[in-house]
Amino acid sequence: RSGEMAKLTQLLDNDACRAYATYATIVLLKMMLMSLITAYFRITRKAFANPEDTASFGKGESAKKYLRTDPDVERVRRGHLNDLENIVPFLGIGLLYALSGPELSTALLHFRIFAGARIVHTLAYLLPLPQPGRGLSWAVGYAVTISMAYKVLKTTLYL
Amino acid sequence: RSGEMAKLTQLLDNDACRAYATYATIVLLKMMLMSLITAYFRITRKAFANPEDTASFGKGESAKKYLRTDPDVERVRRGHLNDLENIVPFLGIGLLYALSGPELSTALLHFRIFAGARIVHTLAYLLPLPQPGRGLSWAVGYAVTISMAYKVLKTTLYL
Amino acid sequence: RSGEMAKLTQLLDNDACRAYATYATIVLLKMMLMSLITAYFRITRKAFANPEDTASFGKGESAKKYLRTDPDVERVRRGHLNDLENIVPFLGIGLLYALSGPELSTALLHFRIFAGARIVHTLAYLLPLPQPGRGLSWAVGYAVTISMAYKVLKTTLYL
Repeated sequence: RSGEMAKLTQLLDNDACRAYATYATIVLLKMMLMSLITAYFRITRKAFANPEDTASFGKGESAKKYLRTDPDVERVRRGHLNDLENIVPFLGIGLLYALSGPELSTALLHFRIFAGARIVHTLAYLLPLPQPGRGLSWAVGYAVTISMAYKVLKTTLYL
Repeated sequence: RSGEMAKLTQLLDNDACRAYATYATIVLLKMMLMSLITAYFRITRKAFANPEDTASFGKGESAKKYLRTDPDVERVRRGHLNDLENIVPFLGIGLLYALSGPELSTALLHFRIFAGARIVHTLAYLLPLPQPGRGLSWAVGYAVTISMAYKVLKTTLYL
Repeated sequence: RSGEMAKLTQLLDNDACRAYATYATIVLLKMMLMSLITAYFRITRKAFANPEDTASFGKGESAKKYLRTDPDVERVRRGHLNDLENIVPFLGIGLLYALSGPELSTALLHFRIFAGARIVHTLAYLLPLPQPGRGLSWAVGYAVTISMAYKVLKTTLYL
């Protein structure tokens, strides 16, 4: 079986696929960071969604008051959902794009701009930056994904 | 390295994988459309979630009134979340299914029905169509994904 | 083309990739189950989000009262969203990890712990179990994904 294992490892020897693996992992780690930031704000703002999460603050009414929404928590949660909505298309379309035999330099350009745009988007959401900072960073990542989708469909179209 | 590149391109020469690439890209583009529709309703209904998004409508209390939920915006957002909940399983299970060596005609049947069902689901959500239109379109996409998962587990089971 | 088909099937002959296919499918099916549980609670608690979903309960005001949130429905929905937030990174990073040539026993350990942690997380959310049951199961799945991401970046880093 070591022959097949070698063949597979070759998949990640392809430079465009290696670049995809690197940037896909980076944007996923960035998205995972949103969970920690949400937890941080839930604990510091004392704003929880589940009764069992407030049990350590006491029983009954005294704990119940921490079952509430907080603007900072909601802001991080919106950023997290926006990540899901945009990073899921990047993951799927980006993988197919990397497999469609793009020029390495073109592929790197797509991946770098997307990752940069999503990091700026998160900063714009959390600081927050005035608009159109967040809107523009969102649009850049969106346009990069559309560009990769166009290449995938041009290469693979099979309806 | 061009040898490996060729080998990879062969992955997308396989017809079932090409069909997967095409339909996965189509349903992801459809999902991405939900972001634009949400933005359209947020702007036309003047219903925003972030204070910085309302800054162009003036300062203080005059802008604050646009920080609100709107039934049309919330409807699109539910459709978008439902897409995430259903298209993510299709992406993962569909890729593994395409790699598991299905009959091409069977694979095409799965991918076409899933993509059609999700497009009908979106129309049913946005128009909206009376029930059980939306429920049925959801169930059809769900059943197609279960059918592919069964084939994947039958082919690969390794616990 | 049967030669290429054979080559592809070899991808799923690799044991680490077969194990990934099995566990990715299992956690996605578990996530899909959340849709059915949400539907179950919406129907039994009579708590719906769309006016067209309540049409069978009568017209006008008599149906309108079922357009409401219910704590049990919201709890399942939070569990479903938490699945999306954590299973999407596992899908992407886990695939790249399986392709990066890990030891089979190490890969199985990662996949089994992740799948187990997410099943415990769902039970902890739905029963619910007292904290830190849910928090710990979340953290275990999170740590497994970080560990795989480290291996992927070490193997593929291409910025």
